[in-house]
Amino acid sequence: MLSYILIFALGLFGLGVAFVLTRGIVSIPVDYEAESPDEAGRLKRMHKAIADGAMAFLTQEYKYIAIFMLGFAIVIGFAINDPSTEYHEGIYTAISFIFGGVISLAAGFIGMRIATEGNVRTATSARKSIADAFKVALNSGAVMGFGLVGLTVIGLLITYLVMAAVMDVSNHVLMEVVAGFALGGSTIALFGRVGGGIYTKAADVGADLVGKVEAGIPEDDPRNPAVIADNVGDNVGDVAGMGSDLFGSVAESTCAAMVIGAVAFAAISMGGSMAEEASILANMYPILISAIGIPVSLLTILLIKVRKAEDVAPALKKMLILASILMAVAIYFLTIWALPAEFVIEGQTVTAFQVYLCFLTGLGAGLAIGLFTEYYTSHDFKPVRELADSCETGAATNIIFGLALGFKSVGWSIIAIAIAVYIPFTLAGMYGVAVAALGMLGTLVVGLAIDAYGPVSDNAGGIAEMAEMGEEIRDRTDVLDAAGNTTAAIGKGFAIGSAILTALALFAAFITRAMYLDEDFTTLELLDPMVLTGLFVGTILPFLFSAQTMRAVGAAAFEMIEEVRRQFRTIPGIMEGTGEPDYKRCVAISTKAALRQMVAPSVLIIGSPLVVGFLFGIEALAGLLLGSLLVGGGLAISSSNSGGAWDNAKKYIEKGHLGGKGTEAHKAAVVGDTVGDPLKDTSGPSLNILIKLMAILSLVFVPFFVQYGGVLTRFLN
Amino acid sequence: MLSYILIFALGLFGLGVAFVLTRGIVSIPVDYEAESPDEAGRLKRMHKAIADGAMAFLTQEYKYIAIFMLGFAIVIGFAINDPSTEYHEGIYTAISFIFGGVISLAAGFIGMRIATEGNVRTATSARKSIADAFKVALNSGAVMGFGLVGLTVIGLLITYLVMAAVMDVSNHVLMEVVAGFALGGSTIALFGRVGGGIYTKAADVGADLVGKVEAGIPEDDPRNPAVIADNVGDNVGDVAGMGSDLFGSVAESTCAAMVIGAVAFAAISMGGSMAEEASILANMYPILISAIGIPVSLLTILLIKVRKAEDVAPALKKMLILASILMAVAIYFLTIWALPAEFVIEGQTVTAFQVYLCFLTGLGAGLAIGLFTEYYTSHDFKPVRELADSCETGAATNIIFGLALGFKSVGWSIIAIAIAVYIPFTLAGMYGVAVAALGMLGTLVVGLAIDAYGPVSDNAGGIAEMAEMGEEIRDRTDVLDAAGNTTAAIGKGFAIGSAILTALALFAAFITRAMYLDEDFTTLELLDPMVLTGLFVGTILPFLFSAQTMRAVGAAAFEMIEEVRRQFRTIPGIMEGTGEPDYKRCVAISTKAALRQMVAPSVLIIGSPLVVGFLFGIEALAGLLLGSLLVGGGLAISSSNSGGAWDNAKKYIEKGHLGGKGTEAHKAAVVGDTVGDPLKDTSGPSLNILIKLMAILSLVFVPFFVQYGGVLTRFLN
Repeated sequence: MLSYILIFALGLFGLGVAFVLTRGIVSIPVDYEAESPDEAGRLKRMHKAIADGAMAFLTQEYKYIAIFMLGFAIVIGFAINDPSTEYHEGIYTAISFIFGGVISLAAGFIGMRIATEGNVRTATSARKSIADAFKVALNSGAVMGFGLVGLTVIGLLITYLVMAAVMDVSNHVLMEVVAGFALGGSTIALFGRVGGGIYTKAADVGADLVGKVEAGIPEDDPRNPAVIADNVGDNVGDVAGMGSDLFGSVAESTCAAMVIGAVAFAAISMGGSMAEEASILANMYPILISAIGIPVSLLTILLIKVRKAEDVAPALKKMLILASILMAVAIYFLTIWALPAEFVIEGQTVTAFQVYLCFLTGLGAGLAIGLFTEYYTSHDFKPVRELADSCETGAATNIIFGLALGFKSVGWSIIAIAIAVYIPFTLAGMYGVAVAALGMLGTLVVGLAIDAYGPVSDNAGGIAEMAEMGEEIRDRTDVLDAAGNTTAAIGKGFAIGSAILTALALFAAFITRAMYLDEDFTTLELLDPMVLTGLFVGTILPFLFSAQTMRAVGAAAFEMIEEVRRQFRTIPGIMEGTGEPDYKRCVAISTKAALRQMVAPSVLIIGSPLVVGFLFGIEALAGLLLGSLLVGGGLAISSSNSGGAWDNAKKYIEKGHLGGKGTEAHKAAVVGDTVGDPLKDTSGPSLNILIKLMAILSLVFVPFFVQYGGVLTRFLN
Repeated sequence: MLSYILIFALGLFGLGVAFVLTRGIVSIPVDYEAESPDEAGRLKRMHKAIADGAMAFLTQEYKYIAIFMLGFAIVIGFAINDPSTEYHEGIYTAISFIFGGVISLAAGFIGMRIATEGNVRTATSARKSIADAFKVALNSGAVMGFGLVGLTVIGLLITYLVMAAVMDVSNHVLMEVVAGFALGGSTIALFGRVGGGIYTKAADVGADLVGKVEAGIPEDDPRNPAVIADNVGDNVGDVAGMGSDLFGSVAESTCAAMVIGAVAFAAISMGGSMAEEASILANMYPILISAIGIPVSLLTILLIKVRKAEDVAPALKKMLILASILMAVAIYFLTIWALPAEFVIEGQTVTAFQVYLCFLTGLGAGLAIGLFTEYYTSHDFKPVRELADSCETGAATNIIFGLALGFKSVGWSIIAIAIAVYIPFTLAGMYGVAVAALGMLGTLVVGLAIDAYGPVSDNAGGIAEMAEMGEEIRDRTDVLDAAGNTTAAIGKGFAIGSAILTALALFAAFITRAMYLDEDFTTLELLDPMVLTGLFVGTILPFLFSAQTMRAVGAAAFEMIEEVRRQFRTIPGIMEGTGEPDYKRCVAISTKAALRQMVAPSVLIIGSPLVVGFLFGIEALAGLLLGSLLVGGGLAISSSNSGGAWDNAKKYIEKGHLGGKGTEAHKAAVVGDTVGDPLKDTSGPSLNILIKLMAILSLVFVPFFVQYGGVLTRFLN
């Protein structure tokens, strides 16, 4: 009982912090410190246009999501029926699924709303001081962090308690029903990451290619009709999309740990009421990890202060490191308290301290991946500077070296992940891997705060430009934005790393459940024809999915380009600043194009595991999942880092190196940056969803595959 | 005995055909049909410069190779000592290794020599007719095809017979010693593909960036000091490199089939002399498949005629299809004759007809991959035309769509490979997969002839330009060259497909042998910490290796660029055509740079399996091999197809589409082409070597790993 109360209290505490921070931000007037009524008017207009645009996209998207979720809930309801229980389990799973989806939507919605309020206030606060502006931007991000984690732990707890109350089933069946919650969250993440990713880059590439390249007007110029869509994109892609992605990771790795631990901890409960309490506590351990992150993160944010411009970038990094240290301490006590000193899991005797080491490995690996990512994508280090040098011989060498940089950067990050697989696996089996994934997500509140801080500052810069607030303000927001760029890359590293570990833990949970339900399925041999063939076919999916999302950005950007060209041609006085561009129409085009273009990749992600499992059975599906995970991890890291490096190589040149703006080297750098945009903001991050969603989908559908899977294989034999 | 005689006779026949074709080519004078003594002089000078340059590279390379091979032979000799035999097995393996290396060198040497003789004669014969020129170019390629396959089958047979005569060991130990032959061949292929690949693209990129882009002189202009190095590159990279790669594939898949079949066919021999003869015949079946390819290919080449320009491209495709059909028929009879009607292999009862079906699946999958590759890389089809369209919005969209095209093209090819894994595996276990690999290589003589035809025609065009033979001749060689471009892509598809199947068969042979030698090693579980960690670490290697080879091309090209700039600056009259450029110096720079830059990737390939196997043991090594195979396959296909598509999109625009040469679209296409160069000609094809060489290395070192492997793991536990 104590564990339930603790989770509930910490979750509510997180929501409370988010609420207080929100009040603090919205209490600042939109036109705070405006120098003239004109400027105040421009600020209000820009703020309204971005907020309305973001809402317009979300409303449209939510309509499709609602239809899809309902349809898929019906499929789940019918398809899943564990023969070992007297319940029609699918109906309960479908309810969890819908609930998880709703919570994920709420988290994304909160994050995006506060981001569209925080951006304009970051810009206006910048007139007072850089410290004020930093506080607004960071707090906007923190609202999302606290709100999201608070919602996650409360949502998981409620799902678990409600299902335990209405269903009288064994612990592991119960956990499988709860996994529906994570599936719901992940499905929303699919829409958020893929749809949002296409939206943001279509608007960005479209705005740049016509505005900067063809018409020769600067970035974020209010005369560009696509400029609002571009700013909206930062909110729907980088804030809401990132949020739902990481919501999915927490929910999924928690569920994976709970599914794998279910049998072990149920066994403890056999020894009376004290033992039952111990069993509940051990069951709740994965949720408790995330819950503890809430007060730890608050402490971190309160401890780190920014006073001047130079503090900004180090402050963000210090936050991550401090949060990691505090978590390492806090979770030590949690683990010793919550887990039995020694217990048997999957036939292996494990001590609480060993589980703590698993957590620590994950936490450390996450931090390491973050730092490797920074090394490969920040222009403070050699790789990006070398990349900038390669621009001197033209766009082609910039592309070749940028691709090579991304490929090379895979090495250390995957080694960190491999260590975070090997040590936990050896210490505590697949339960250890799931705990390592939770460890990597341990600093999530701070991580999300920093992640969302980036697009908020970026938007603030755009608003300062569009509202003509002057050079000084723009310079200040640029400082904030530059720090955000590096942390965005670090955040993406975390997101990918935790996605890989989460997917692996889900994979293990899937195998565990399948072996439990299917007596004939006792080993997963590498040299089995079905497993091996599945592995090969699985390698196709990340490539195909990347191709689809990259082409989707291209196709959506083309529509945007045509619209911007049309407006430049037909609206009188638009280039002189006397004619008003039709921002709304560009927002509508981005919205429609993003939603249409995300259909194909979504079908691929959701359809592949279902079709392969149904036609070829569990072994083939296991191969498929692992094959796509192995390729997807490397591809996601390389896409994300190539893109980040090209972006910062361009920024490095723009700071005056190699001749600065306007040189041939700068032109070559712009080509690299444009190529990198869809890689780092659409296809790369979307691969996280691919590997996680396929794994959680397979886990939830295990009873279906065990009963009906392998139709074609059986028919052929 | 009959099988020995047959292999020997067919091998000699192949060498005889190669000899006759060579005589036919060299009997044409270099200045055949020259219009003036001046032209004859230019032709002779160009021919000599290219031939000398190629020889200079090979001589240098061979020096390093000799040292490396000797050193590595000593390592093999000491490290390998199967405890189950009374022999110090490593010494014999080392001898096989050296022999395999020498044969591979000879094959590459023959191919390159005839290519440097054929190219000039193709150009001069083009003055007579396109049919004559085609014949010279194709026959040059055919010399390599017949010579290489002839040498392979004779070399394998001799190694087997000699080792059988001097060692009194069981069949499977014998086969492992013979596998040293394949390792030798593959090690040479490493030098050929990686070193040659770096050479050819460094010269190409270097020549283009200074000549075409900076100085504004056309391609193949004799005033460009790097132009000879560029032409030499085609010979050392695309002819000798491709040849040693495919020599490796044949030798390796033959050895894989023989190792896996060894125990099964030894069992047959227990029933008297008739049975012993049957056992020998079954043992020789894998070599016989390649041997039968020799007369079948000769028939194919004699049957297909070219009379006019339009015939060229279809003729090459018809050849591949006809060769496939003839092989399908011939191997049916071979299989029924050579294999027992029914036998037990790896515990599975298999019929001869089932083995034939495995062959057929491989043959069909190879053809399918060839046709998919053509679809994605030829400008006769939609993908490349769409790619050309994307050039209209600039270099960035061209790169995005080209990368997406490559990613997308992975799908069907890997599905073809997956089918060629699943069906043979189900029918005849891993023996079936090895036979499928041989099936994919069944049309190798014709395939190699067509592959080598490409660079010969390309060189002929360059020589026609440099010797100022006039527009008409250049147009004719362009027709030949264009057809060669498409077939080069098809050939690369074959090479990758067969490399994946070969590596998989070698992997199976490695596991088979390891399980035989190590009694504790009975299953290869996917969910084993070591296997899983190995899989993740394995995925790094193709990325890292690609990064290394791409950067190597960049670094070597930079050296070339500086030299060309220096010559333009310091040699008086060079731009007016009165001063003679120093071709030799450019050749020397390319040679040195290529040899220096190939050290790091070679260390990675050879070091990784040895270090992982020694420190972490067989399970980790198995994971490493499979992980790199899974990622390497997709990456090789996508690199190769992106590069091919960019090349042909540029050619499509140069034919006058989208405004033709000199437009912004053309400039964008040139950027894509330059990016594609190292992808399609260096890093992509080099990945074939990565996956095959690591697998054969592991197979040969099995006794070492079983005895001494896993040092670190044992120490830690």
